[in-house]
Amino acid sequence: MQFRYLSLVRQQAPLEHCITNIVVTNFSANGLLALGASPFMSAMPQEVTEIQNFAQALLINIGTLNQSDVEAMLIAGKAANRTGVPVVLDPVGAGATLFRRKIVEQFLAEINFAVIRGNAAEIGFLAGTDWQGKGVDAGTGADSENLSRLAQSVAQKYRCVVALSGETDFISDGLKTYQICNGTRMLPKVTGSGCLLGAVIAAFLGVSPPQDYFSACTEACTVYAVAGELAAQGLSNEYGSFAMNFINQLGAIHETRLADKARVLAQHE
Amino acid sequence: MQFRYLSLVRQQAPLEHCITNIVVTNFSANGLLALGASPFMSAMPQEVTEIQNFAQALLINIGTLNQSDVEAMLIAGKAANRTGVPVVLDPVGAGATLFRRKIVEQFLAEINFAVIRGNAAEIGFLAGTDWQGKGVDAGTGADSENLSRLAQSVAQKYRCVVALSGETDFISDGLKTYQICNGTRMLPKVTGSGCLLGAVIAAFLGVSPPQDYFSACTEACTVYAVAGELAAQGLSNEYGSFAMNFINQLGAIHETRLADKARVLAQHE
Amino acid sequence: MQFRYLSLVRQQAPLEHCITNIVVTNFSANGLLALGASPFMSAMPQEVTEIQNFAQALLINIGTLNQSDVEAMLIAGKAANRTGVPVVLDPVGAGATLFRRKIVEQFLAEINFAVIRGNAAEIGFLAGTDWQGKGVDAGTGADSENLSRLAQSVAQKYRCVVALSGETDFISDGLKTYQICNGTRMLPKVTGSGCLLGAVIAAFLGVSPPQDYFSACTEACTVYAVAGELAAQGLSNEYGSFAMNFINQLGAIHETRLADKARVLAQHE
Repeated sequence: MQFRYLSLVRQQAPLEHCITNIVVTNFSANGLLALGASPFMSAMPQEVTEIQNFAQALLINIGTLNQSDVEAMLIAGKAANRTGVPVVLDPVGAGATLFRRKIVEQFLAEINFAVIRGNAAEIGFLAGTDWQGKGVDAGTGADSENLSRLAQSVAQKYRCVVALSGETDFISDGLKTYQICNGTRMLPKVTGSGCLLGAVIAAFLGVSPPQDYFSACTEACTVYAVAGELAAQGLSNEYGSFAMNFINQLGAIHETRLADKARVLAQHE
Repeated sequence: MQFRYLSLVRQQAPLEHCITNIVVTNFSANGLLALGASPFMSAMPQEVTEIQNFAQALLINIGTLNQSDVEAMLIAGKAANRTGVPVVLDPVGAGATLFRRKIVEQFLAEINFAVIRGNAAEIGFLAGTDWQGKGVDAGTGADSENLSRLAQSVAQKYRCVVALSGETDFISDGLKTYQICNGTRMLPKVTGSGCLLGAVIAAFLGVSPPQDYFSACTEACTVYAVAGELAAQGLSNEYGSFAMNFINQLGAIHETRLADKARVLAQHE
Repeated sequence: MQFRYLSLVRQQAPLEHCITNIVVTNFSANGLLALGASPFMSAMPQEVTEIQNFAQALLINIGTLNQSDVEAMLIAGKAANRTGVPVVLDPVGAGATLFRRKIVEQFLAEINFAVIRGNAAEIGFLAGTDWQGKGVDAGTGADSENLSRLAQSVAQKYRCVVALSGETDFISDGLKTYQICNGTRMLPKVTGSGCLLGAVIAAFLGVSPPQDYFSACTEACTVYAVAGELAAQGLSNEYGSFAMNFINQLGAIHETRLADKARVLAQHE
């Protein structure tokens, strides 16, 4: 596997417009800064259109919302589509409540996303009844083959790249699916670790051409999972230390270390 | 003292719905995750009723508010009362402004709380004129006996458990009052340390039967204070290190360590 | 240089009302607590007037906004002007969007600020067309003399103290300008490091008489930059460790260390 976008993120420091939830703003911004990107946080409907004129990427994360946030996300997403800024959707808790289900459906109908990042339950919700009809419980116990097909199915349905993250990550553009076997069980114990992954993916898209979004997304997820592995070394349940180490690793990680540690499997059809 | 609920929190990972302030969302979520609980942050009026169908506990913290938050808290609190989800109130700065006084009074009139957690000034405000009439300055200099009676008085007034936290914690159900002599002067120097305690109490209620809320609350406060003590070991004014250690300790603390360190005094009437 | 206000902050623990952005609330509160100040975060229009009756300082930071925040800032700022509470403006991203430009202009027209803190781009925007007309690109590459004159020019224009922070800080009251040569390139890689500086300045104003705001602001910036230097010792790109160390240093820093490390140049006209 080639790692070409990490160094571009560090060279170009892409300005990433984040509309994200109030739990993870600080951790997301610090993660992006450590990595080398330049976060711009704003959920003001009055300015989000203008921001798409100078942003390199847009993240829409629905973890917490109010009416003004929803409005800002719709305006920003559509403006980004017009100016060619890649948009990442993080449908946090997509299936958990009726309100979130409706918001996600509206966003998917009105905005074109370059990447959707979610856990198995969230991506499983996006797959909808057809997928559920196959009896897969995406939430727990889904085996590797099922998760791979789930990612692929949602990528085909929404014509975008899907990053299904978990113990193993599955990245699919609907044709090919890559499996990232790196990671650590400590990451999900830090709030916003999924949200920051969505933000990191957006930063990588911000320095890649559209035809390379799949590769950029796969590289982003690999960088992230390997940084997690390195941050967890020597720890068991010290989640405070882990969160600090993880930010350190996002700043320190480089291609040599990545090439040494990455375990990425290509699964072409 | 028996410690029975800490292990249940870790086994059951209770889903706790937090409606809390924008200063402490991240720290609260990380503290709950480290402990073993499962935080769900949302202040959307449109979904907070539904959340009470699958939540094990609800935290209402008024540290920062807007009109939509107040609405969400009222809806969520009443829904939780209907579905039997225990509700913890953290009346941050209750007496500091007229606005907060009115909000707290409205909440106490319309929602049944299982536990109210506050510092001496906040609980002193809830005690109202009768208590103030006794000339107690709950804010500073109140002696141990006064604080114990203050906690008991508010527990009786609102027919719930009161956790009055400070250098020493006083937990009362109106009949019996326990005094927790653990803790560290470093905790109040980390923002949200009181707020996270409220969240931790809610997690413990989420795995205990209603008749045991007093015990569960006492255990939660003991776990918290001992974790603080352990986190402060070897430190003087390194509050950044302390905050990290504290999250580590919430993940690491176990019954043997607790039994060794806990200094809890029962004060029956 | 005399350091007289750091110890007053620790003795008096000034209550600082912060209306700040959702990315930095936690870091700002922890930084203020570590330093010795007492943060009070609220953006509720209903209570911000009352808060000016017991606050020692007010911070207005426009990093993220909604309509209610803007309303609260205007109400609080005007009330603080009436009660004599010093107000610090942090015009985050002032020139970046039309919306922010208008908000900043409205604030500057309706509120008297004791200090404006910003980076070169933000202060450059406040200087307006006259300054831009001189062909200075305040964003990048501006030399030391230009930045010094920029700070002075904005201080004269708004009749307040200006703290232009960056690799070198320039503090000006329009007559004299001080240059603080301390600092570290790691600070800008921690989100909210500029915002926390604004908050720290406000805490120092809270314990100083109005005629000494320039000195108090200069001392605040020096304390901050030296704490950053000390926190960065031995680190290269471990921004997680740096952020923790920095909070530690804000708690530990004292006059002897400051006198030893501070490199402050006075530039009188």
